[in-house]
Amino acid sequence: MEHHKDSLSRRQLLEHAAIAAGVTAAIAAIPKPLRAAEALKLKKDDVILLQGDSITDAGRDRRAEGNPNHPRALGTGYPFSIASELLRDHSKLGLDIYNRGISGNKVPDLEKRWDKDCTDLKPSVVSILIGVNDIWHKLAGRYDGTVEVYEKGFAALLERTRKALPETTIVICEPFVLRCGAVNDSWFPEFGERRTAAKRVAESAKTLWVPFQTMFDEAVAAGTQPAYWAGDGVHPSLAGHSLMAQAWRKVVGV
Amino acid sequence: MEHHKDSLSRRQLLEHAAIAAGVTAAIAAIPKPLRAAEALKLKKDDVILLQGDSITDAGRDRRAEGNPNHPRALGTGYPFSIASELLRDHSKLGLDIYNRGISGNKVPDLEKRWDKDCTDLKPSVVSILIGVNDIWHKLAGRYDGTVEVYEKGFAALLERTRKALPETTIVICEPFVLRCGAVNDSWFPEFGERRTAAKRVAESAKTLWVPFQTMFDEAVAAGTQPAYWAGDGVHPSLAGHSLMAQAWRKVVGV
Repeated sequence: MEHHKDSLSRRQLLEHAAIAAGVTAAIAAIPKPLRAAEALKLKKDDVILLQGDSITDAGRDRRAEGNPNHPRALGTGYPFSIASELLRDHSKLGLDIYNRGISGNKVPDLEKRWDKDCTDLKPSVVSILIGVNDIWHKLAGRYDGTVEVYEKGFAALLERTRKALPETTIVICEPFVLRCGAVNDSWFPEFGERRTAAKRVAESAKTLWVPFQTMFDEAVAAGTQPAYWAGDGVHPSLAGHSLMAQAWRKVVGV
Repeated sequence: MEHHKDSLSRRQLLEHAAIAAGVTAAIAAIPKPLRAAEALKLKKDDVILLQGDSITDAGRDRRAEGNPNHPRALGTGYPFSIASELLRDHSKLGLDIYNRGISGNKVPDLEKRWDKDCTDLKPSVVSILIGVNDIWHKLAGRYDGTVEVYEKGFAALLERTRKALPETTIVICEPFVLRCGAVNDSWFPEFGERRTAAKRVAESAKTLWVPFQTMFDEAVAAGTQPAYWAGDGVHPSLAGHSLMAQAWRKVVGV
């Protein structure tokens, strides 16, 4: 047994060192105000809500969304992995985990459905990943919200959340893209400005921050192709979603 | 950062100690011939195949089964979690991972489709979880295969696999049930005899062995309700599938 475990550890250390170090580096680089002082303590019957756009949605079956912890209601992305692992590792807490991401959503879309799809669920933890459509639809000429509109709308959404749910832990996920597929030079520098805006909003609302862009940048710097993590530059592969789930758990500390 | 990591470790140690210790104990109890001498070394372009019945199938989209690593083709069970994590942790290997479990399958059903759904895929690793329908359908009067029929059929399937794929690592997963839902006293002692038969077959074919029944027994002994891991006693919950994926990775050493 010891031999088995040792050789596994050594091999993983050698093979995955670069990617793992990237996740660690991305988390280590989180500004102090956006870090938890200590790991979140989940309590009995806590509700965990994952919110966002298609990256969060990940093909979930909306007919099942009333049932927490339902495999099909969680989609096939990072919410599924987070839910599976939390339910496994906290078997006595009776956690209820929901995915309410909707493909194509931007900040104003979240705003419209926030009572039903956030406040009413009374989450102990709400995680929000939003922003890629706010720029993508603008680049495509289907939307005219500027960076400022994004920042103001996002800040208002968090203020409203704080007011309605003062005890809730809010987790803001950094919007990210990989430089491949649909993501070309026209996205920059505006995409970076939107990431900075999201970070300002998170700092101002005293939320946690999951550094997905930094994490993917590190993974690419470690030698993998951007398309390995997200073929079209926006929607993560299985590997990309799994890396996100891993970072999310480390940041939130659950 | 150190503080964050330390408190996470301490808390997890306290809260999940029993379940985690159960997985470790289950793995430590694996008979020596059924253990890998050392961790499996995955190689470039390796193909990993998960085979079995509905537990493996887990609602996969069969129209997508030709595409390895496709989220919908992997279902929402332990194959999804294993695939996500292996693709994340071995980003440079170009692994191809398939789920070819089919609901309702028994040993003779695997036998009929083994060329197409195993040999032709040339897997480097094939994992097989089969046996629950062999008894369930018999209890329901829809099948008449005895324990001996199960053992002989399973042994023949592995012999055929060894002959066709001499270099392939074979992983046999222990058939398991939780004592709840559809699983009543009528399943015993025959179910135990079938588990023992599966273990003999694995030993004789020199495969690896994933001790799912021992693992779930330990989890229940640690104080969770059987139905938490599998509501109907047969089909695992999200938490149950996640525990399976964790044990599978530890046993196979990837």
